[in-house]
Amino acid sequence: MDLREKIRIIEDFPKKGISFKDITTLISDGEALREAINQIAEHLKDKQIDLIVGPEARGFIFGVPVAYVLGIGFIPVRKPGKLPGETISINYDLEYGEDQLQIHKDAIKPGQRVAIVDDLLATGGTVEGVAKLVEQAGGEVVSLDFAIELTELNGRDKLKNYDVLSLVQYDI
Amino acid sequence: MDLREKIRIIEDFPKKGISFKDITTLISDGEALREAINQIAEHLKDKQIDLIVGPEARGFIFGVPVAYVLGIGFIPVRKPGKLPGETISINYDLEYGEDQLQIHKDAIKPGQRVAIVDDLLATGGTVEGVAKLVEQAGGEVVSLDFAIELTELNGRDKLKNYDVLSLVQYDI
Repeated sequence: MDLREKIRIIEDFPKKGISFKDITTLISDGEALREAINQIAEHLKDKQIDLIVGPEARGFIFGVPVAYVLGIGFIPVRKPGKLPGETISINYDLEYGEDQLQIHKDAIKPGQRVAIVDDLLATGGTVEGVAKLVEQAGGEVVSLDFAIELTELNGRDKLKNYDVLSLVQYDI
Repeated sequence: MDLREKIRIIEDFPKKGISFKDITTLISDGEALREAINQIAEHLKDKQIDLIVGPEARGFIFGVPVAYVLGIGFIPVRKPGKLPGETISINYDLEYGEDQLQIHKDAIKPGQRVAIVDDLLATGGTVEGVAKLVEQAGGEVVSLDFAIELTELNGRDKLKNYDVLSLVQYDI
């Protein structure tokens, strides 16, 4: 199955000039959803991963089923004010301005091996922030896994120390 | 396995007097996550469900893996401005004020059988809104499935016309 065919392109979203890659058409197709999850799980299955970490909200879409398939737990990374327990926070750069992400302080035990799963690798700013959070919490980031990669934005340059997987790549 | 033991109670979150049921400790446990997803999937497996629908963000956590297990698609319901395609919107009541949810207009074909999955049944306001969206989009709501139910808030009174499953119930 060609997962690329299941992704819908929507021009000028969220603003003029952006060619948005819409994964909702992929995940609404049961076979395509299965294939995407299975490809990520297959990539991770021999890497002794203890936990999947994913940022809200689209990181949950791919991350939790991968955790289910591997039989391991899932740790959510969220915007401020959403996690009820004690948290560690990190500020990360967006295209304009910055934002904050949080993880539960007790979510990861020292030395646990973590894969971070998200829908999209663009500039890499978000996943770099999530990786730092995992490392501050004591975890070892073993792999970064994405449904889509926008190669022109060179996110991988920021992520040279990590194993990176993307299922579908776009050069625009 | 007793899923109740995996849910952490955090007092006075998000505000004083609320005894918050924290599912992050359940989903961080690989066996508990599997058990929760399998129980929902088991409940749905003979109901000829075509699609799982779930509201952001915690509805994604339980809804997508259930869709994976059943081999069907997942349709996200989101806050305004997040979905890139043409949407249908609904306003729904919160404890204070109201909020809006959206679904892609073309996400559900007329007559498709839908189960709505979310983490929590409280007053039922959110899931009632999601059910109306699904029905406006042409779908038939067959089942509403939750990890947790706060029985004292009588959410089921709003949902009498639907099949409702919750995995763990709390009376406070």
